[in-house]
Amino acid sequence: MSKLVVVGTVAFDAIETPFGKTDKILGGAATFIGLAAAHFNTEVGLVSVVGGDFPENYLTMLEDRGMNIEGIEIVSEGKTFFWSGKYHNDMNTRDTLATELNVLADFNPVVPEHFKNANVVMLGNLHPAVQLGVIEQTKDADLHILDTMNFWMDSALDQLKEVIAKVDVITINDEEARQLSREYSLVTAAKKIHEMGPKFVVIKKGEHGALLFHNDEIFFAPALPLEEVFDPTGAGDTFAGGFAGFLAASNDYSFENMKRAIIYGSNFASFAVEKFGTERMQTVTNDEISKRLEQFKALTKFEILS
Amino acid sequence: MSKLVVVGTVAFDAIETPFGKTDKILGGAATFIGLAAAHFNTEVGLVSVVGGDFPENYLTMLEDRGMNIEGIEIVSEGKTFFWSGKYHNDMNTRDTLATELNVLADFNPVVPEHFKNANVVMLGNLHPAVQLGVIEQTKDADLHILDTMNFWMDSALDQLKEVIAKVDVITINDEEARQLSREYSLVTAAKKIHEMGPKFVVIKKGEHGALLFHNDEIFFAPALPLEEVFDPTGAGDTFAGGFAGFLAASNDYSFENMKRAIIYGSNFASFAVEKFGTERMQTVTNDEISKRLEQFKALTKFEILS
Repeated sequence: MSKLVVVGTVAFDAIETPFGKTDKILGGAATFIGLAAAHFNTEVGLVSVVGGDFPENYLTMLEDRGMNIEGIEIVSEGKTFFWSGKYHNDMNTRDTLATELNVLADFNPVVPEHFKNANVVMLGNLHPAVQLGVIEQTKDADLHILDTMNFWMDSALDQLKEVIAKVDVITINDEEARQLSREYSLVTAAKKIHEMGPKFVVIKKGEHGALLFHNDEIFFAPALPLEEVFDPTGAGDTFAGGFAGFLAASNDYSFENMKRAIIYGSNFASFAVEKFGTERMQTVTNDEISKRLEQFKALTKFEILS
Repeated sequence: MSKLVVVGTVAFDAIETPFGKTDKILGGAATFIGLAAAHFNTEVGLVSVVGGDFPENYLTMLEDRGMNIEGIEIVSEGKTFFWSGKYHNDMNTRDTLATELNVLADFNPVVPEHFKNANVVMLGNLHPAVQLGVIEQTKDADLHILDTMNFWMDSALDQLKEVIAKVDVITINDEEARQLSREYSLVTAAKKIHEMGPKFVVIKKGEHGALLFHNDEIFFAPALPLEEVFDPTGAGDTFAGGFAGFLAASNDYSFENMKRAIIYGSNFASFAVEKFGTERMQTVTNDEISKRLEQFKALTKFEILS
């Protein structure tokens, strides 16, 4: 079986949306990525760090959902990374209310021996220096996928560029693509980002879908139009998890297969937003994913004879 | 041959974008709609009004591009409708600098005898009372399509609702759909608008594509990702023109065929934005449309076995 390494935060989130608010619940990029990726026929190993305050039953849940948690370091005297945010009424914009790095501040990732020969490495949102450390421990991987955020463009651009130069695929949202490339048009932005290293550029547009760029080819996957978006937290990570999990399981990194991976990413993300935090991703079944896949097909399929 | 009646403004526009600015050039909803629709195998009759200041050669151009202009009234002592706007840097938002109704203020549309039995009627952006007058003169049409704007929601909502109740298809942008339905989710908004009358609801999202709703079915057509959007003026009208022209020519008003119509609408709109005003739409060829159609197919096509 193929192997997928996922590095990213495992965290506490406190979220406020127009529909309600939560106390500290399970969150984090690696958590969302892993919950999606574990649906595929690949071994998923998480690499992250939590504090002594992190509940045992959260770790059990991750294992029960099929993840290998050997690479999650527990710093018993430390506190788990905490993020708190409040979404505006349109659900597309949010304010960060708190970011407490805690154990993340000194995190030095160690990829477990069993996963050092992983086929695919998914670098979830984290400090570029940490991502770089993981790349160095997984040099033989077929595919390195990077997800990042504007926060690192503002605070660690040089190191981020070093990471970008070493990865095969970057997933990034539209505003971040514009910030990174200094281009407004996403087509031009993708070209500039190609030149920085990645052969494949995925631009996530939230409710407006996602674009995949490879040389002069473009593929577009819509987001599923939903009656209600309950909580967008983790949607981008879930997308990345579905994308990376599908690729690792299929062991095919062609443009055609990346299209399928993006549809799976969008599929999983459409579930993630249905409930608070990871709640929906903990219960979604392969049967539900298959049914929704038919909706994705129907959504964009048309026949016009040339 | 089938017949398509197009009612809407024929106007002067003065446009400012980050790329430059124009003096008064040819514009207007009916102009853009007609320039797209005339590419299809259907008779296109424009119904509009201009002033004595409207250049003869603009009218000749419309005829040369295949439109019947018998229904364009010329009020020699009046002035042509004038609109002026300035686009912001993101090209998605604009300020209206001037709106001079002129001859539009007293416009009483007369559908030429030859077009009273039109198969399809495209009601372009105009006062709902004018649109209502055209509906009454084309009662036997197979399909009435309405395009409208937030301006009429603010100023003539009751009359607009009367029009909405009488049409088969409404095309509207996302913000307008939200305003009309008082719902944020476009899925819920489309449901509410269905209940107002139209069997088909088309929500235009500009660079983010367009959604077609019919009962519980949804189709999504992306906009073509472009390196440069030069001038978005008339893109929505051009979309409506491609949509209506294709439907009139094919004489098939099924959901399946509406999907194709929306792809054609998006196809034409992707050309409209390449130059100022109607410039690009005056020169685009069927061959160029066919080639771009292949790009639209490639953009969303994927194969996943169930």
